[in-house]
Amino acid sequence: MTMLDNVLPGASELLPGHVWLAGAGPGDPGLLTLHALRALGQADTIVHDALVGRPILALARPGAERIFAGKRGGKPSLVQEDITARLVELALQGRRVLRLKGGDPFVFGRGGEEVLALAAHGIPFRIIPGVTSGLAALTAALIPATLRGANQAVVLATGHGADGAPAETVDWAALARLGQPLVLYMAVTQMPAIARNLIGSGMSAGMPAAAIASATTPKQRVLVSTLGRIAEEIAGAGLPTPAIIVIGEIVAVRERLLALTGEVAACAG
Amino acid sequence: MTMLDNVLPGASELLPGHVWLAGAGPGDPGLLTLHALRALGQADTIVHDALVGRPILALARPGAERIFAGKRGGKPSLVQEDITARLVELALQGRRVLRLKGGDPFVFGRGGEEVLALAAHGIPFRIIPGVTSGLAALTAALIPATLRGANQAVVLATGHGADGAPAETVDWAALARLGQPLVLYMAVTQMPAIARNLIGSGMSAGMPAAAIASATTPKQRVLVSTLGRIAEEIAGAGLPTPAIIVIGEIVAVRERLLALTGEVAACAG
Repeated sequence: MTMLDNVLPGASELLPGHVWLAGAGPGDPGLLTLHALRALGQADTIVHDALVGRPILALARPGAERIFAGKRGGKPSLVQEDITARLVELALQGRRVLRLKGGDPFVFGRGGEEVLALAAHGIPFRIIPGVTSGLAALTAALIPATLRGANQAVVLATGHGADGAPAETVDWAALARLGQPLVLYMAVTQMPAIARNLIGSGMSAGMPAAAIASATTPKQRVLVSTLGRIAEEIAGAGLPTPAIIVIGEIVAVRERLLALTGEVAACAG
Repeated sequence: MTMLDNVLPGASELLPGHVWLAGAGPGDPGLLTLHALRALGQADTIVHDALVGRPILALARPGAERIFAGKRGGKPSLVQEDITARLVELALQGRRVLRLKGGDPFVFGRGGEEVLALAAHGIPFRIIPGVTSGLAALTAALIPATLRGANQAVVLATGHGADGAPAETVDWAALARLGQPLVLYMAVTQMPAIARNLIGSGMSAGMPAAAIASATTPKQRVLVSTLGRIAEEIAGAGLPTPAIIVIGEIVAVRERLLALTGEVAACAG
């Protein structure tokens, strides 16, 4: 993409045999970074996951090879090993490889494992952060992750493993005690258990909660509820995945903004 | 910027009398989003904070007015009220206003307060998320925010108020008990108190910790230490601000990657 050369003079080129891991952001192509757009224009091969949509892949260099390396929930780690092996193989073949992930590659994206494997094989790599889906989903739903006087921290957590092995489980009681908003990735199927754990640990069942599906895309849907009811309402509404769930007083900001403006005047993303 | 029209067909225009709040990302202009770059090309007036650097402001439309609305630590909220009043005033004058903030406007950026004020004055707004500085700083230091088997959550917290009023204070004991990595924004001056609180609450003084200053810019510096020693080492090294501090086992990934690759082969950002 020569069009970015004026904007980013001297930026590195994606070289043959190198792998760049980049975040594609939450879905809206406008939330790609300039570095990610540039990498799309340079890669010979793009290895992407299920969360990278067609409008973003359409920005690839014409003729670039696309490899779908999607994983859906519950698949074993063998699949991850296959992806890593494929990245190594492509690099050793001298391809210019872009590993493109939804959101940010280092936030619940298993990017750490992939770069450790690349490094172990002596393959040069670069990591390009992206707008992480959890925080972008909140913004798209008009919910600030932090609000002065309301919270001084925000917790990003994965719902995976809530019913899994103890080593993979978040201490929900400590989270409940912390009293700061929670942003949950990949938590829809585990939400009944998570809500039970948080309420059992002292978090109010009336705590505002929201689920944001397909954030920043034309299919975005926002469901506002409470911690006690959200799992049931997600099921009842047939909310599609992927969805981000947020629990905390900050959720109420959405209603304040919508009351002030009407949905038309305020848009996010 | 007509150059993005092909990439983002049908994207909204920044209209007179509207305010767009956008994140400028951590510092590297290549980590701007396409929406933010487009907004820079359309705004009549850009109201930016101290964390938005010259290379990013250079991407503004020629002739655009720039207003510095920087705040440094410890200033009272009156300054924030002045900024908000200025945004309202500019919009009511019919300017196309870009409020540009370092990182993400909704993550410790006071964007929530600003959009609530805009909405109360009936001013149409849009929020464009950015790559938040804390997560980008970790990536730039080759530290994944999450690593399978190591952590299932990551906490973003502000160091502001650690010695302040109780309502503004994070429950450090709950954070210590949670046992998940902490990413601290604006915490350099409070770091001695924060470390004391965390260690006093049971977190190991030997827990790996790192400080990343001016992340993703040519002035980036990374200091790796432990929770028990980092405050002293930051002072000793004369590390400049802004800096992000990260505490957790994930910090060790940096050393593993550097040992495998050498600093030259691995680059991030």
